[in-house]
Amino acid sequence: MKKGNEQLAVMTGLLIADKPGTFITRHLDWAEMQFGGLVGDRHFGVISKADVRQPMYPRGTEIMNRRQISIVSEEECEEVAAALGIERVAPEWLGANMALKGLERLTALPRGTRILFPSGAGLVCEGENEPCVHPGKVIAEQTGNPKLAGKFVKAAWNRRGIVASVERPGIVSAGDEVRILFPDEL
Amino acid sequence: MKKGNEQLAVMTGLLIADKPGTFITRHLDWAEMQFGGLVGDRHFGVISKADVRQPMYPRGTEIMNRRQISIVSEEECEEVAAALGIERVAPEWLGANMALKGLERLTALPRGTRILFPSGAGLVCEGENEPCVHPGKVIAEQTGNPKLAGKFVKAAWNRRGIVASVERPGIVSAGDEVRILFPDEL
Repeated sequence: MKKGNEQLAVMTGLLIADKPGTFITRHLDWAEMQFGGLVGDRHFGVISKADVRQPMYPRGTEIMNRRQISIVSEEECEEVAAALGIERVAPEWLGANMALKGLERLTALPRGTRILFPSGAGLVCEGENEPCVHPGKVIAEQTGNPKLAGKFVKAAWNRRGIVASVERPGIVSAGDEVRILFPDEL
Repeated sequence: MKKGNEQLAVMTGLLIADKPGTFITRHLDWAEMQFGGLVGDRHFGVISKADVRQPMYPRGTEIMNRRQISIVSEEECEEVAAALGIERVAPEWLGANMALKGLERLTALPRGTRILFPSGAGLVCEGENEPCVHPGKVIAEQTGNPKLAGKFVKAAWNRRGIVASVERPGIVSAGDEVRILFPDEL
């Protein structure tokens, strides 16, 4: 990744976490991104509360929300499926908000990378989304194979995508071609 | 920098940009950090407007403010002074909000590094602060040597410190011992 480098990808899926009682997200044709995330998503908010992901702050204290939107790649989902020995891992099983196609390695995108949409909206990569146990449970249910529940974290390590925050609001649509703009200094 | 690594430093100077008509900051004993930055500072705001630093957005559009607080190190200021052949470069001449002492190379801190204060307040490193021409003019004035104005950008390259945003509000005080907490994955 060179200075000023950029790359193109396609947002093949746009999804929202708004179904009560499940981690699974559902597909949308388009959505409004505001400061704070996707309108209607349960992770929406400029401010959130510290949890197990921010152990340097007391649980429940208000902090800036840098985990507004989670993004996976089609390519890495295929690798996770292969590692689990199953046909497919769907982005919605991972609770993802966006699925991208065309990037060699989404999870390795450096913090500060921008993801820019045709509407003018922009996201900033806040870093790797370290795998937790929830998707494993979903995959076990979806495939009917309870043994997979405990295998997800290892299978998804370095392939689970990134979290991002909204830098500039705007409309995003499934099928959008997005620009991936690497930060100047790496 | 290893996983989970952390380091200590001392905030030797706390400064605010609130004097009309000048880039120079002034020292405070303590200040309140809220979401958005230092209360009363001209860069305060959760939201700011895109400028020359964000050429991927139209000038003047509202974006998240990731340049709330600028931080320099005593050690790098000494290196810049040596490169300019002068005795001292004061943090206030650079418009800095904080001066840290005890870090080998502040400017190289990765994005996502946390700076944690005794009050519980926390900052997140948003990246290197690339040198602009303003401090050169101040240094030329302060030293009475107009030739230095054009030499600052080169002398300060990779030594100009970082910008940060407030992750958790709280009081910060000159003399605070701060924890520098590196992100897990680099």
